Amino acid sequence: MESGYGEIPENANEHCPGPQSESAGKSDACQGCPNQQICATVPKGPDPDLVAIAERMATVKHKILVLSGKGGVGKSTLSAQLSFALASMDYQVGLLDIDICGPSIPKMLGLEGQDIHQSNLGWSPVYVESNLGVMSIGFMLPHPDEAVIWRGPRKNGIIKQFLKDVYWGELDYLVVDAPPGTSDEHISIVQFLQATGIDGAIIVTTPQQVSLIDVRKEVNFCKKVGIQVLGVVENMSGLQQPLADLKFTRLTDKGEERDVTEWALGYLRTKAPEVLDLFVHSEVFDSSGGGAAKMCVEMGVPFLGKVPMDPQLGKAAEEGRSCFTDQKCSASAPALKRIIEKLVVERKVLGESMDEGA
Amino acid sequence: MESGYGEIPENANEHCPGPQSESAGKSDACQGCPNQQICATVPKGPDPDLVAIAERMATVKHKILVLSGKGGVGKSTLSAQLSFALASMDYQVGLLDIDICGPSIPKMLGLEGQDIHQSNLGWSPVYVESNLGVMSIGFMLPHPDEAVIWRGPRKNGIIKQFLKDVYWGELDYLVVDAPPGTSDEHISIVQFLQATGIDGAIIVTTPQQVSLIDVRKEVNFCKKVGIQVLGVVENMSGLQQPLADLKFTRLTDKGEERDVTEWALGYLRTKAPEVLDLFVHSEVFDSSGGGAAKMCVEMGVPFLGKVPMDPQLGKAAEEGRSCFTDQKCSASAPALKRIIEKLVVERKVLGESMDEGA
Repeated sequence: MESGYGEIPENANEHCPGPQSESAGKSDACQGCPNQQICATVPKGPDPDLVAIAERMATVKHKILVLSGKGGVGKSTLSAQLSFALASMDYQVGLLDIDICGPSIPKMLGLEGQDIHQSNLGWSPVYVESNLGVMSIGFMLPHPDEAVIWRGPRKNGIIKQFLKDVYWGELDYLVVDAPPGTSDEHISIVQFLQATGIDGAIIVTTPQQVSLIDVRKEVNFCKKVGIQVLGVVENMSGLQQPLADLKFTRLTDKGEERDVTEWALGYLRTKAPEVLDLFVHSEVFDSSGGGAAKMCVEMGVPFLGKVPMDPQLGKAAEEGRSCFTDQKCSASAPALKRIIEKLVVERKVLGESMDEGA
Repeated sequence: MESGYGEIPENANEHCPGPQSESAGKSDACQGCPNQQICATVPKGPDPDLVAIAERMATVKHKILVLSGKGGVGKSTLSAQLSFALASMDYQVGLLDIDICGPSIPKMLGLEGQDIHQSNLGWSPVYVESNLGVMSIGFMLPHPDEAVIWRGPRKNGIIKQFLKDVYWGELDYLVVDAPPGTSDEHISIVQFLQATGIDGAIIVTTPQQVSLIDVRKEVNFCKKVGIQVLGVVENMSGLQQPLADLKFTRLTDKGEERDVTEWALGYLRTKAPEVLDLFVHSEVFDSSGGGAAKMCVEMGVPFLGKVPMDPQLGKAAEEGRSCFTDQKCSASAPALKRIIEKLVVERKVLGESMDEGA
């Protein structure tokens, strides 16, 4: 990173040495740049905001980014459930939502309509439980339908404020949920946090090629900015449901669909009860290309596992609930749990640094 | 819009009158703005690039934006299939992908690995057929895995170039596929195209609340910037499949999944053969809140229809095929066709202006 990203003005020339560089405004690459004169004359030194961020982050042991190339792959659901799971393991957890134009986190943590409070320590997160605090622009909007129509610099400004002004207190984990892509929010969060140490990124994808193309870009983004890829999660990896949860329909002679669920379940209960304990599985997204596991091998990054598409997990997300507290998400919760164990309990991925910090 | 959006510098004060305003640099709101001096002194007048864009767009009859609040709702799939459908109706069609960090359009049109050519008329689109041309940053990347790590201004710059420098020729329809959200790309495309006339926006969503929250933001974005909402499409609206097409699994004592499809189908054939003719239906995304139809009533925008989740449509998108040319997408193609007919053939939405232009 060094001078490669955020510090560089938006309208800089391509090979900008960065305004903090000794050659700022004086390098060949600066010829014709609108910032040349300013860069050549301003005093050099660290951004004071980065110092303030480092102070805030001094009480945070682990920082994990949750990224995806494409939207709608379940990134926010994973961030939410990861946070719930870590909190249930008695860690102190913070969840920071840096999706400024489409914040889903307040709803997924059951916190819609909550406000942020300010004290002399800074902005106070909204707490789900005493050890799970959440920050999102969703808490700052006067009306939930309101569109945040902001270009990059304003988005970067609020992200900086989240890092600089939020009083998290002592945290074991700060989980950062990013919007899809590799643009302002991603460059900024890395630039703002990198000096404080980022443990790495979890990348979420779905199995089909069109999503994997974007996830490769995300892996390359991580490589380029020097963020370790903790691993890739393949989400919505086939729809899996208890057979007993399905609706059954029959086509009438007129080609219309008639709901025969009650009859079908009764019939099965009498004639073929053993199938009622089965799960049914449907490939919603084409994974014939080998899915995320194959891509991980090709790109040399860890594969964390598959999570099936589970309508009950979607429902938990809609209702702001943890999927681990009851048995409803029987199709997805065990898979999510294995992934989180890989990340944290077995410490295969987050490694020894956790011990040092603890 | 007027001076409300793009013309304003990124770092302007909040109530910036706009650099083209007579009071630019002289208004009270300009006090302390870093652009104050420049704004007060530069010559006023229209952006010459907007004049160039207007010239290019003079040969384009209809411009349709395809938007979504959330990613992964099938926006690019809809853009692609809409373009295929319009082209099959013998219209001259252009498809412009302004998702700079995650371009899916080249793959979805079967054009991966193609290059853009330049002539004295400008950049030439890549053609699927003689009446379907496509432009995307995906055609400009030396390597498909490469991440375009660009902040807003560079994204806006390439979008401007797409509008200014691409030689589309005579077009009946220009379909613009945008990334999710309400940020740089969206503000820019509206700002750049508005003077040339935008017919309106199609907004794509999935049925669950978490997606509808974002779609409300998108509708409000359209209202704020003065773009007509042509209608909302509810995509992935339930999965429907023949029961005999499913896979069946059983959880072992160790919590592992074992495929028992062969056994289950044999067992059902013997014990309960009547269920094998049934369809199963699964609500993949929770639509208990009333889905997009209810939201459309509340927000006063047209509802265009539902498209069921269809693994075969996903496959068509993966393979860059039209879903209308064979019978494979029997679950989704009729629904898509009805939506496109509503938009174009019945002219309920695009209205009379089409006749004027034709």
